Amino acid sequence: MDIARSPLARPFPEMQPIAGVSLRVARARYKSWDRADLTYVELVEGTTVAGVFTQNVCCSTEVEMGREQVRLGRGRALVVNAGNSNAFTGYRGREAVEAIMAQVAHRLDCRPSDVFVSSTGVIGVPLPKDKAEAGVAAALDAPEVSYEVAAQTIGTTDTFAKGATATAMLGDVRVTLNAIVKGSGMIAPDMATMLGYIFTDAAVEPAFLQSCLAAANRSTFSCITVDSDTSTSDTVLAFATGAAGNQPLTGFDDPGADAFAAALHDVCRQLAHLVVRDGEGATKFISVSISGAEDDESARRVGLAVANSPLVKTAIAGGDANWGRVVMAVGKAGEPANRDTLSIAFGGHWAARNGLPVEDYDEAPVAAHLAGEEVDITVDLGIGDGSATVWTCDLTHGYIAINADYRS
Amino acid sequence: MDIARSPLARPFPEMQPIAGVSLRVARARYKSWDRADLTYVELVEGTTVAGVFTQNVCCSTEVEMGREQVRLGRGRALVVNAGNSNAFTGYRGREAVEAIMAQVAHRLDCRPSDVFVSSTGVIGVPLPKDKAEAGVAAALDAPEVSYEVAAQTIGTTDTFAKGATATAMLGDVRVTLNAIVKGSGMIAPDMATMLGYIFTDAAVEPAFLQSCLAAANRSTFSCITVDSDTSTSDTVLAFATGAAGNQPLTGFDDPGADAFAAALHDVCRQLAHLVVRDGEGATKFISVSISGAEDDESARRVGLAVANSPLVKTAIAGGDANWGRVVMAVGKAGEPANRDTLSIAFGGHWAARNGLPVEDYDEAPVAAHLAGEEVDITVDLGIGDGSATVWTCDLTHGYIAINADYRS
Repeated sequence: MDIARSPLARPFPEMQPIAGVSLRVARARYKSWDRADLTYVELVEGTTVAGVFTQNVCCSTEVEMGREQVRLGRGRALVVNAGNSNAFTGYRGREAVEAIMAQVAHRLDCRPSDVFVSSTGVIGVPLPKDKAEAGVAAALDAPEVSYEVAAQTIGTTDTFAKGATATAMLGDVRVTLNAIVKGSGMIAPDMATMLGYIFTDAAVEPAFLQSCLAAANRSTFSCITVDSDTSTSDTVLAFATGAAGNQPLTGFDDPGADAFAAALHDVCRQLAHLVVRDGEGATKFISVSISGAEDDESARRVGLAVANSPLVKTAIAGGDANWGRVVMAVGKAGEPANRDTLSIAFGGHWAARNGLPVEDYDEAPVAAHLAGEEVDITVDLGIGDGSATVWTCDLTHGYIAINADYRS
Repeated sequence: MDIARSPLARPFPEMQPIAGVSLRVARARYKSWDRADLTYVELVEGTTVAGVFTQNVCCSTEVEMGREQVRLGRGRALVVNAGNSNAFTGYRGREAVEAIMAQVAHRLDCRPSDVFVSSTGVIGVPLPKDKAEAGVAAALDAPEVSYEVAAQTIGTTDTFAKGATATAMLGDVRVTLNAIVKGSGMIAPDMATMLGYIFTDAAVEPAFLQSCLAAANRSTFSCITVDSDTSTSDTVLAFATGAAGNQPLTGFDDPGADAFAAALHDVCRQLAHLVVRDGEGATKFISVSISGAEDDESARRVGLAVANSPLVKTAIAGGDANWGRVVMAVGKAGEPANRDTLSIAFGGHWAARNGLPVEDYDEAPVAAHLAGEEVDITVDLGIGDGSATVWTCDLTHGYIAINADYRS
């Protein structure tokens, strides 16, 4: 099946190389396709790592092992398999992952636990060990590729290559962050979403890298949803090579730590938005901003109830400012809310205020707003100070076509 | 917009009249349509009532008032408005409901609180009081109609009239239950779903009627979902006229109480299934049976996670036995589960057992099962004794067409 490029696609940004990071790809042919589907990233010795993973209890071996590996804080290589998630494949799936780790560790003369593996694609089919081994062998000797090629290679139903970049000054040392991500379906926020990789030449101690990544994740990847379905393989990893030569960051008291954390947050937000922009069948990028909630977490949950509502998402797809469906979604969220203090706006135009339809509500500017590619829904609950913004896309025939008409 | 009759539709059952119940309809013209849209049901003096209502915190005035009225236990009349839900309409909406109650109470010489009002349709537009009053006046003097006509009249995007009937022997007194329901979108189980009305000539004390209805609701209306969106107006009311002349039922120690409760459960289950069969865009009726859960409520939650998963529902729509998506949905439910004891079957054919794909799994009989109109998904969690069955429909282009292409 050929899936058309998302109308919300963005061009891949220009990226400078990051010292200590090299990318290669190969054809493992996990599916009957003629494209590179195995990505190999080599990281210089001394690279630190942090990660956040899916909370799905049926998570893949890769996620289970990755969670353990991140605790050790060191990374030398990353292998990403596209076309097979290797989830729910028991000991056979685990053997394939261990084989990849051993193969790379042997070449790099490092510990197997320094080699991170991710897989994405169909659930329930063990990753074929022979294809993986041949693919890894080919990748180890392949020429280096750009971040854009790597971003293409980790994709599955993705329709465009997704990347983000940022820089930060740590004292007088300039550091760069390059990041790639894949994901367009089975996207719901539960710590992380699909596969995202962030590379930086900054020197950052693993514990601080982990706390920066976890914080960034909470208001970026954990605030997006395409279809409310939380993948078994969601993984976001951050690798810091230290090649920029700054004094390693250990906490927020260090000079430049704030700038680094802000840059990391920035690339996470960019990646999260790009995933929504490649949401299966998406034609509109929707921001749902909640204010006046009991607290920020409650605001996030209300935002997700709105962003996951099939009736809200289909209304936006149809250009219909059906704010009654937003009322319904707020009410079903299971969070503190009061019908009589609830206000709702589209594109800054209030349709309802304090539990009542606005009397002189003019639908014309709202209709114009909804005709665009970016739609803003604002909800004020009027009961507290909590706020959050979540992002999603509309629900269209394209989503049905990709997931029903196409047999995976 | 013309919506085609659901391929899962069932013929309306033959119903005997129930002594003490008379049904009439009228054209209030709440929308620009030329059809009866106001239903009036008159109940003999002494009729008892029970009800379950939506848990959506942005519920309609009708739900708010109905919840209070049910506590009094007595009902003389029911008015159902189709085409306008009157939800989120503040004091203006409340005035319209109170006007209807007063108008009917005046005619019947009863208390306004004996008159139940339900409304269904668009959210956020106050019910027009003048249209309601003219409609009620016309209905009060209209000829009696059948349950089938009443079922048609309470419908909105429904594509067929939905009813159920059952009888029970209370000692040597035969009692009858007739019931109608509407609903096809914004259907998610949270105590009750959309509008359902059950009428019986049995004599039943209100408290016992309420406990029977609440129990039946838990394993019927609370176990269905079309789109995970919980309406602001969900209401199920049961009216018992007592005209059959049995000794009034007060509890399970009374002769015939078990038979009555079973018959009530039976009609609730029938109605709940009919709502799923008229789910927006539905082409398949899906039963999700969960066993081996920590407890029954946990099983119900896992079942709903599967039944609400867009990826599972689109896979079924496409006839794809994609059990990996069921694994994902079980894992994201947030309930106790263990990947390594999880088993999944379609139509009784096990695809995965104890955390592993079944080695000699034959897809042919599964594909044949999925080609049919009724699809069974069985999930055994393998960790406890809890079980539940929930029912849903597939997610198709029809759902998108009804909710996106059509402006409500």
